[in-house]
Amino acid sequence: MNWHLARRTERMNPSSIREILKVTERPGIISLAGGLPSPEVFPVEAMREASAKVLRDTPVEALQYASSEGLPELREWVAGHLRQSGMRLDAAQVQITTGSQQGLDLVGKVLIDAGSRVAVESPTYLGAVQAFGVFEPEWTTVPCDDDGPLPAGLADARGARLLYVLPNFQNPSGRCISAGRREALVRAAREVALPLVEDNPYGDLWYDTPPPPPLAALWPEGVVYMGSFSKVLAPGLRLGYVVAPPQLGPKLLQAKQSADLHTPGFNQRMVLEVLRTGFLDTHLPAVRAAYKRQRDAMAEALKAHLPAGCRWEVPHGGMFFWVELPAGTDAARLLPHAVERGVAFVPGGAFYAEGGNPATMRLSFVTATPEQIDRGVRALADTLRAHL
Amino acid sequence: MNWHLARRTERMNPSSIREILKVTERPGIISLAGGLPSPEVFPVEAMREASAKVLRDTPVEALQYASSEGLPELREWVAGHLRQSGMRLDAAQVQITTGSQQGLDLVGKVLIDAGSRVAVESPTYLGAVQAFGVFEPEWTTVPCDDDGPLPAGLADARGARLLYVLPNFQNPSGRCISAGRREALVRAAREVALPLVEDNPYGDLWYDTPPPPPLAALWPEGVVYMGSFSKVLAPGLRLGYVVAPPQLGPKLLQAKQSADLHTPGFNQRMVLEVLRTGFLDTHLPAVRAAYKRQRDAMAEALKAHLPAGCRWEVPHGGMFFWVELPAGTDAARLLPHAVERGVAFVPGGAFYAEGGNPATMRLSFVTATPEQIDRGVRALADTLRAHL
Repeated sequence: MNWHLARRTERMNPSSIREILKVTERPGIISLAGGLPSPEVFPVEAMREASAKVLRDTPVEALQYASSEGLPELREWVAGHLRQSGMRLDAAQVQITTGSQQGLDLVGKVLIDAGSRVAVESPTYLGAVQAFGVFEPEWTTVPCDDDGPLPAGLADARGARLLYVLPNFQNPSGRCISAGRREALVRAAREVALPLVEDNPYGDLWYDTPPPPPLAALWPEGVVYMGSFSKVLAPGLRLGYVVAPPQLGPKLLQAKQSADLHTPGFNQRMVLEVLRTGFLDTHLPAVRAAYKRQRDAMAEALKAHLPAGCRWEVPHGGMFFWVELPAGTDAARLLPHAVERGVAFVPGGAFYAEGGNPATMRLSFVTATPEQIDRGVRALADTLRAHL
Repeated sequence: MNWHLARRTERMNPSSIREILKVTERPGIISLAGGLPSPEVFPVEAMREASAKVLRDTPVEALQYASSEGLPELREWVAGHLRQSGMRLDAAQVQITTGSQQGLDLVGKVLIDAGSRVAVESPTYLGAVQAFGVFEPEWTTVPCDDDGPLPAGLADARGARLLYVLPNFQNPSGRCISAGRREALVRAAREVALPLVEDNPYGDLWYDTPPPPPLAALWPEGVVYMGSFSKVLAPGLRLGYVVAPPQLGPKLLQAKQSADLHTPGFNQRMVLEVLRTGFLDTHLPAVRAAYKRQRDAMAEALKAHLPAGCRWEVPHGGMFFWVELPAGTDAARLLPHAVERGVAFVPGGAFYAEGGNPATMRLSFVTATPEQIDRGVRALADTLRAHL
């Protein structure tokens, strides 16, 4: 039997991160590769209470088919939460999704045709390249500096269906776009009528000062905004959301219906219960404090151990350091040597839609302990010294 | 801001069933419209125990990111379960999905290009038309009789990317394809190398005798098989699975990754706990007994009340009766009158990929009690007599 596959499957490839993660499961490997939230901050007790309450008070509602838009009370909570960040929105604009990865899939379905242009940052989030890539766009990479996309670069993206931006503590670069740059970006995007897709999984994970208001607060009618409960509560429940201008709502909803009918009602109700107790008010500061210790440990370790010629900025939030190696280095070729010395990372080349700088690597500080981070970075430094 | 929408959005339309379901939420309306499983058979106590156990024994694993393929033990359970129906498969072929609706989306992504042909039954499942429609196929409708698709009709589907079949107690027609017809269908499909996508949400809901072995048991290398826990346990957890020939596995997996990374691990673990206790051995017979009473009540009510000129077969399983009204009737125009008399149904015209017989309606017997079914069918009969 010879299956005739859809053309888009040529653009589906095994995730390089996934392959690396398999390596890191070997005992004794310190993983600075994955973006797995630390289990130490999982709200296990709160989830236990919430799940018991949901199955005691509303078992039938939790187990029955539910609405494609999502649980009304959860949509209200999300709207209220986002209003605190300066966004103006109605709960009717909130579409609950099965993780924010699904938000990317739905946005791609509604906005991208084969051959249409999609603009991305450099580097950019690999999961977005995978999700949008399914819809066969042509990529346009907007030039970036340490403060994010250069507004002047948006003119070249005129006519693209969207510019995908991750403004807060970007995966992989860790950068957080400044308030001034955000305003300039929105001005430039308005000028060329370039829709923005703003992804914000890490905004609540700040360790120094909170990030500036979202792009969606500056341009509500031109921005699709995505958020997630994966990083602030737990990723295994797969709960995210998309906030779209009212024009897009019906098509996003129909895309959602055909994708999976609705996000599990039980999961939505559990998370709503946890949120209602005000749990985040104490939980978020605890998560921030834990990750800040790990971030600081990695900052110290990199400074102490990495050889000259490496460059990085200390991120003010999120999960990742982005290290630029001396020009000409291929981080992917270093990886097996690093693994031999007991440490794993993700080569940065994976994080570009059109190929990018292979002399880069992404280091996660949220899964390993401060002591492991120090040992891991030492092993990495030894690898670099031996192979540069 | 003028959004440039993808061409495929022209094929996304509000689900007519969804609109009807809103009407049925009005108090006093007896709904024979939706396919909502009866809450009376929800395994609430088993879910309570399972969720407590999961959050006691493996809280971190349940709340952390998980593998895109699905929980290995759940994949093993599915493989074992399907082997009992005559399928030969390895657990590695099982892809866990966020409800079986997601299976349709993933299969569409991997097999359908814009303009490629997709063959369907007449009538066919609306959710499949919606999911596949997103990928912009040309439809080919295979002629059907009361025993399903006519094997002779498959020659005209030569070159189609797939034929979508729901062999057991089809939604909407209720028909169950006989063993002989299954063999003839597979023979005809092999001859024209036409892949089959076999959807089996209702196979365990038989009320007289179990259905024949699946098409996938007759032609493992030519059939993608889909199943669901929605009808035998609970739909609100959104758990289904796809079993594909090994050639398709990697692309389905990559499509799954980009769609939502993975199906919630907590939900997979809960359901695995419930399955491991052997709960289905006692639960399924109870569900069958309850639905059989409701099926029998609807069979009696239809016979007693419907006017001459209506035609239906009593389904041997599943959730639906399919009633053909006198030629020339438009069931969609009858619906508002039926709602006035306190009963709702789904007009059959919705269940055709290319437009079909408007003189049909789908009646669900799983949500209403036997007494409500009798009252509902009486009201329906009154409507027919008043407006035919």
